[in-house]
Amino acid sequence: MNGPERFLAACARRPVDRTPVWMMRQAGRYLPEYQAVRARVDFLTLCKSPDLATEVSLQPIERFGMDACVIFSDIMVAVEAMGAPVTFATGGPHVAAPVRTLEAVERLHVPDPIEALPFVFEALRRTREELRDRAALVGFVGGPFTLASYLVEGGSSRTFAEIKELMCSEPAVAHALLRKLADFVARYAGAQPKEGAHAVQVFDTWAGELSPSMYEEFALPYQRKVIAAIQGAGAPAILYVNGCAGKLKMLAQTGADVLSVDWRLDLDAVRAALGAGIALQGNVDPCVLLSTPAAVTTAARAAMAAAGPVGHILNLGHGVLPTTRLECARAFVDAPKAAVAT
Amino acid sequence: MNGPERFLAACARRPVDRTPVWMMRQAGRYLPEYQAVRARVDFLTLCKSPDLATEVSLQPIERFGMDACVIFSDIMVAVEAMGAPVTFATGGPHVAAPVRTLEAVERLHVPDPIEALPFVFEALRRTREELRDRAALVGFVGGPFTLASYLVEGGSSRTFAEIKELMCSEPAVAHALLRKLADFVARYAGAQPKEGAHAVQVFDTWAGELSPSMYEEFALPYQRKVIAAIQGAGAPAILYVNGCAGKLKMLAQTGADVLSVDWRLDLDAVRAALGAGIALQGNVDPCVLLSTPAAVTTAARAAMAAAGPVGHILNLGHGVLPTTRLECARAFVDAPKAAVAT
Repeated sequence: MNGPERFLAACARRPVDRTPVWMMRQAGRYLPEYQAVRARVDFLTLCKSPDLATEVSLQPIERFGMDACVIFSDIMVAVEAMGAPVTFATGGPHVAAPVRTLEAVERLHVPDPIEALPFVFEALRRTREELRDRAALVGFVGGPFTLASYLVEGGSSRTFAEIKELMCSEPAVAHALLRKLADFVARYAGAQPKEGAHAVQVFDTWAGELSPSMYEEFALPYQRKVIAAIQGAGAPAILYVNGCAGKLKMLAQTGADVLSVDWRLDLDAVRAALGAGIALQGNVDPCVLLSTPAAVTTAARAAMAAAGPVGHILNLGHGVLPTTRLECARAFVDAPKAAVAT
Repeated sequence: MNGPERFLAACARRPVDRTPVWMMRQAGRYLPEYQAVRARVDFLTLCKSPDLATEVSLQPIERFGMDACVIFSDIMVAVEAMGAPVTFATGGPHVAAPVRTLEAVERLHVPDPIEALPFVFEALRRTREELRDRAALVGFVGGPFTLASYLVEGGSSRTFAEIKELMCSEPAVAHALLRKLADFVARYAGAQPKEGAHAVQVFDTWAGELSPSMYEEFALPYQRKVIAAIQGAGAPAILYVNGCAGKLKMLAQTGADVLSVDWRLDLDAVRAALGAGIALQGNVDPCVLLSTPAAVTTAARAAMAAAGPVGHILNLGHGVLPTTRLECARAFVDAPKAAVAT
């Protein structure tokens, strides 16, 4: 099997010759060849330059040979396309004018994604062409709740106090914002398979910070809409929620083909809760890749054993950390290959 | 039933006249009478002044009438007593000389807790005397992993990269540190019931950030030791781990009498996983107390309905936030009382 065949078979829970592998945020800060590009351009310029985005998307494939290539981009380009200016500092994205009123929600627009974000689609097309059959191309979007959290908080948050207060005190405003975000994100995600993406991952990273009842009201219906748009375009949808252990059944109810699972619970526990009807991606703690190749191999093998050989894509439980050691990244990508060789 | 009777009955899963209630970090920053005290002294001075610590411990009881009174202190006083200087800034505790080598671990000492932390025990005795039978007195300690994380990281962390790297690369050093911390914390926790505490809560807040296998190796055995010391002193032990959903069975294996549960999963799911053999505390999202009294009442009632009337202590899923509205705190404390009245 080649990379795309192996990856798509795992998404569809069909047998594979070996477990496919990639790493969330694999195109990025831990790679010296990425740092060399970033020495010339800033983060947002890189996102908006299809030639450079293609180059850095391919870098980890050239170096390590993963089975999937995630496009280099950022979830916040969607928010910018809707009319909310975003800047990037060391602490993550910053939204200068937080969106906390119905008037502010109404000022956001829902543009045509291909017109509003031409650089993303150009990067998808070029990367797909360069990849040929080496690896599956994975597009992505931010989940509506996660994008809303940045818009309402004005940036990153530890408590999500502002958006939760809005949800409790003015649920109609919160729903208006989420509805508008889901409208655009669904179109944006649904357009990616036609432009080269084999699959699209929805990063609703911070929805795990909600109580189950808030998740059910403010995250689940909007995730469903985005996932349906991806599947309507003929591609599998992967859902990532960081800290998902308390909401597994609801995550499955989104209809996602694949759940991307964080490292705080074991994949066999997810199998026990959800059965074999959904594929799993994950779930090694990215901090393990700061230590030794031997520790990485042990952790990767444990994840593969817990998930079983069918319907599993080996991945991390969150994005690669900037201080990741290259030899640890290599040990991670090699783990499923070595498991077959032995 | 009076406060202590109601609280201790719930810990022991015996019937109660109504669900007991308190709030983690209830003595603190959201109260104007606390701010008035803090205008005169800094945080660490307040921790070390038994008369003032007693005063602020009693403030929420005087204002709202909770069934339990948690002593005003900080988990980091234990670390300071072991020889690692700690300062407090807005970002949380700061350890100027992080502990990352065996030599640094060996420089820590395990003193007699009553000699090393006389102000804590004096505050416990005075508060118990002032409380009479109004509320149960809850002492507390930091869990060994959580204290170790501050010592190794040098302060707060989002990723816990330093301590996880140490655990993977130099497990012997990590275990030496955890063993020493557990030695002291077990003595410190075990001394509190004799000095007035009806129960002792172990805040191993950040242990939820570990993978299950790392939790089993680096958190569970040390939690067990501390919990056994509390129970050996004749008091119930309450265990709090933030983000506990993926490790419920291991939390129960610590032998804790009560699990204090965060808001990211429902209490009926915890009951389903663990049965009726363990009491539960929690688990309203503290962010709800930033919104409206009506939203608080709804959330408190949902938590009580999910947990059932026996073996439940109504609480938040994490500490009270500084921006909590006083009328929301009142609605929270009143919710179990109103449930009986209707």
